[in-house]
Amino acid sequence: MRTYLDCIPCFFKQALEAVRITKVGENLQKKVLDELAKAVSKFPLTSSPPEMGKIIYGLVRKITQQQDPYAEIKKRSNKLALGIYSKLKRKVSHAQDRLLMAVELAIAGNIIDYGVNSFSHRKEEAGVKVGGSLDIEAELTRILNQESKLVKRENERIFNYSQFKVELKNANHILYLADNAGETVFDRILLEEIKRVEQDKKITYAVRGGPIINDALLEDAYECGIDQLAEVISSGSDAPGTILSLCSQEFLKIYKKADMIISKGQGNFEAMSHLSRPVFFLFMAKCPVVAKDVSTICKLPIDKGCKVGDIILLYHGGK
Amino acid sequence: MRTYLDCIPCFFKQALEAVRITKVGENLQKKVLDELAKAVSKFPLTSSPPEMGKIIYGLVRKITQQQDPYAEIKKRSNKLALGIYSKLKRKVSHAQDRLLMAVELAIAGNIIDYGVNSFSHRKEEAGVKVGGSLDIEAELTRILNQESKLVKRENERIFNYSQFKVELKNANHILYLADNAGETVFDRILLEEIKRVEQDKKITYAVRGGPIINDALLEDAYECGIDQLAEVISSGSDAPGTILSLCSQEFLKIYKKADMIISKGQGNFEAMSHLSRPVFFLFMAKCPVVAKDVSTICKLPIDKGCKVGDIILLYHGGK
Repeated sequence: MRTYLDCIPCFFKQALEAVRITKVGENLQKKVLDELAKAVSKFPLTSSPPEMGKIIYGLVRKITQQQDPYAEIKKRSNKLALGIYSKLKRKVSHAQDRLLMAVELAIAGNIIDYGVNSFSHRKEEAGVKVGGSLDIEAELTRILNQESKLVKRENERIFNYSQFKVELKNANHILYLADNAGETVFDRILLEEIKRVEQDKKITYAVRGGPIINDALLEDAYECGIDQLAEVISSGSDAPGTILSLCSQEFLKIYKKADMIISKGQGNFEAMSHLSRPVFFLFMAKCPVVAKDVSTICKLPIDKGCKVGDIILLYHGGK
Repeated sequence: MRTYLDCIPCFFKQALEAVRITKVGENLQKKVLDELAKAVSKFPLTSSPPEMGKIIYGLVRKITQQQDPYAEIKKRSNKLALGIYSKLKRKVSHAQDRLLMAVELAIAGNIIDYGVNSFSHRKEEAGVKVGGSLDIEAELTRILNQESKLVKRENERIFNYSQFKVELKNANHILYLADNAGETVFDRILLEEIKRVEQDKKITYAVRGGPIINDALLEDAYECGIDQLAEVISSGSDAPGTILSLCSQEFLKIYKKADMIISKGQGNFEAMSHLSRPVFFLFMAKCPVVAKDVSTICKLPIDKGCKVGDIILLYHGGK
C-alpha cells in the first residue's frame, strides 16, 4: 500500500506516542517531531507506511538512546496472553469449526496492539500510569466476546475462509509472518490447529529482525512456545512490516519457496499488499486509510465497504 | 494556552482538511504539508495554537492561490442558521430562564464548526461530496435537542452562569468576540436577549480581519443582522483566535475599554486564556488538549475533569 496524505498526521501521532513511552522530557519529544518533519518532506508517497515507521522508531531510538522502549509492554503482553492460553484452547476444542475458530482468534489477537495503543491514549488523558495489567485483561475478555460474532461473518470478500481452507490443504510450506508480542500466543493456537489437521506441513514463523514498537522478536516467539510448532526465523529487518528490500537473504529464500503465506497485522498488509504472491492477510483494520484501501482492493461498494475495526482475512492470489 | 506536542499531529490534519476544501490535486496538498513541516520545527511551543493556525491557512492560501476556500461553506452556514432563527427565538421565549437559554444556544451554535469538520471527515471516508445542506440541518436539529440537557448543568466551575449574570448587570461596554459564520445567528439570539433586558449596554461585536477557516467576517455579521444590535468591527487580524499582538489599534482600544468580554469559540480561548481581563469564554471543548487545559485552569479533579464535547462558560476574572 502506498502512503496517503492522511498518513502524515498519523506519523506524528505515532512518533509522539513512541517517544512518550520512553519517558524522556518534552525537549527530546519535540526533537523527535522536528526530525520527523524533516524526514516527511523527503518521503515519497509511493513508499509504504511501514517504511516511514522504520524511520520514526529509528529517530526515537537515536534521540532517546533507548533501544527497545516497548520491552516491558511486550513481556507483559506475552504473559497475559499465555495466562489465557487454556481458555483459548477450550474455545477451539468446543467450536463447531475448530479451524475457523483458531483463525478468528489469531486475527482477534491482533487487537492487542490496538488495545495497547488506545489504552495508553485513554489512560494518559486520565493521568493514569500506562498499561496496567487489568486493562489488558479486559481487552482480552472483549476479544473473546467479539470473536463469537465473527462466526456469522458473511462478507466473503474480506473474510475469505473457504479459500484459506483450500490453500491450506494444498500447501507444502507455509510462511507465517508474525506481528505483535502477545499476539504470538494467538498465533500458536492457529499453528497448533493447523498441525493437528495437517501434520506434515512445514511451517516457518518469521518475526522482526530488531526491536520495533511492540512487534514480536525471536525471544517472544520462543517465550510463547512457537518453536515447538514451526521453524522460527527473523525477517532480518526492523521495519514494522515485511518490506522485502530490507529483509535478509535467508528470509527471502523461504519467502520465495513457500507456497502459502499467512501474514499477520496491518503493518505486513501495508508493506506487502502490492506483491504477487499467494498471501492471506489476517488483521484488523485499524485506520480509515487502510479500511478504504481494502475496500478498493476488494471492489466493495461504498456503503458496504470495509470499516475500522473490521476483522479481515484477505486473499491475495498472485503467484 | 500554549501549544502542546499533541497539537502538532493535529496541525497537519487541519492543514490537510483545509487544502482539500480547495479541491487542488495531491501534489499541492503535499506541498502544504511539506511547508508546514518546515514551519513546525521553528514554531515555539510557548505560542498559542491559533498562531500556527494563521501560518497553516496562510500556506494554504499561498500555495492554492485561493483567498477564501471556506466562502461557500460560510454562506451556507449563515443561510441554514437564519432558516432556524424563528425556531431559536421560540425556544428563548418559552424558556423559564430566557437569558440562560440564549447563552446555551450561543454556545451550542459553536458546534456548527465542529459539525462542518466532522461531516467533511465522515463524508470523505464514505466518498460523498462534502457539506451537503441536509447534514447541517441534521446537526442543527441535534443542537436544539442537546441544549435542553444543558439546563441541568451542575458544574459551576466550567459553566459559571451566575457570575455571567452579575457581570452582565454591572457592565457598561461589552466586547463580543465572534467565532464562526452561521454561529453568528446564535450570537444574535444572545445579543437580542441582552438588549431586551439591558437596553443601555454598549455592545461591540468583533469579527476576524480576513478570511480564515469558516470564521465570521464583517459580511457574515451584516448578513445575520448583528449590526442592528451592536457596533460591528474587525479585530484587524486573520488569525483563527484573537491574538492581541496581531490586532488593530482600533480593536485594542475597545478591548481595553470594555468592562466585559464575551469570547466565543475554542480559538479565542486558546489565544486569550492567559490574559488578565474579565473574559467569559463560551465554547465547546473540541479536543482533549483543550479539555485538559480547562480542567487545569478550573482545578478540576481528574475524574470530574472537562471532556471533549463539554459546553463551557468559563469566567476569567482578571482586571
